Amino acid sequence: MSEFTATVTVRLKRGVLDPEAETTKQALERLGFELSALRSADRFEIDLEAPDADAAAERADEMAERLLANPTIHDYDVAVTER
Amino acid sequence: MSEFTATVTVRLKRGVLDPEAETTKQALERLGFELSALRSADRFEIDLEAPDADAAAERADEMAERLLANPTIHDYDVAVTER
Repeated sequence: MSEFTATVTVRLKRGVLDPEAETTKQALERLGFELSALRSADRFEIDLEAPDADAAAERADEMAERLLANPTIHDYDVAVTER
Repeated sequence: MSEFTATVTVRLKRGVLDPEAETTKQALERLGFELSALRSADRFEIDLEAPDADAAAERADEMAERLLANPTIHDYDVAVTER
């Protein structure tokens, strides 16, 4: 077994309203910044043991499906690095 | 001017308690997953125009300093890609 860190990034699907991101964009604009869009996402870094990177990615994928992401409104991706 | 996407990842500094991450870890364990640690972070993807990637990174860095991160409790990093 090796130690891996799986990074799961959970984003809202295109078309789902994101009032928090809109508020953050407006606050940046009030501070004088120019930007054309801002999207927010949640990022989970999960340390786990697995026989190989594929197994670690599969497990992280299952965590995203079952708890971290809501498939109705979220997309997610998983990236794995060995520690 | 070119179009860039700056990704700002904001994490809690080591030693700062993260009850949300702890709760998420426990929920995953209750579902039967084995993991040794879970850290959560906020990720902002910012679309902006800038003369070059360095200028885009500098602007995103300033946004993090002024609004997106709280320097008392957060670390952040900035990555820029051209669109």
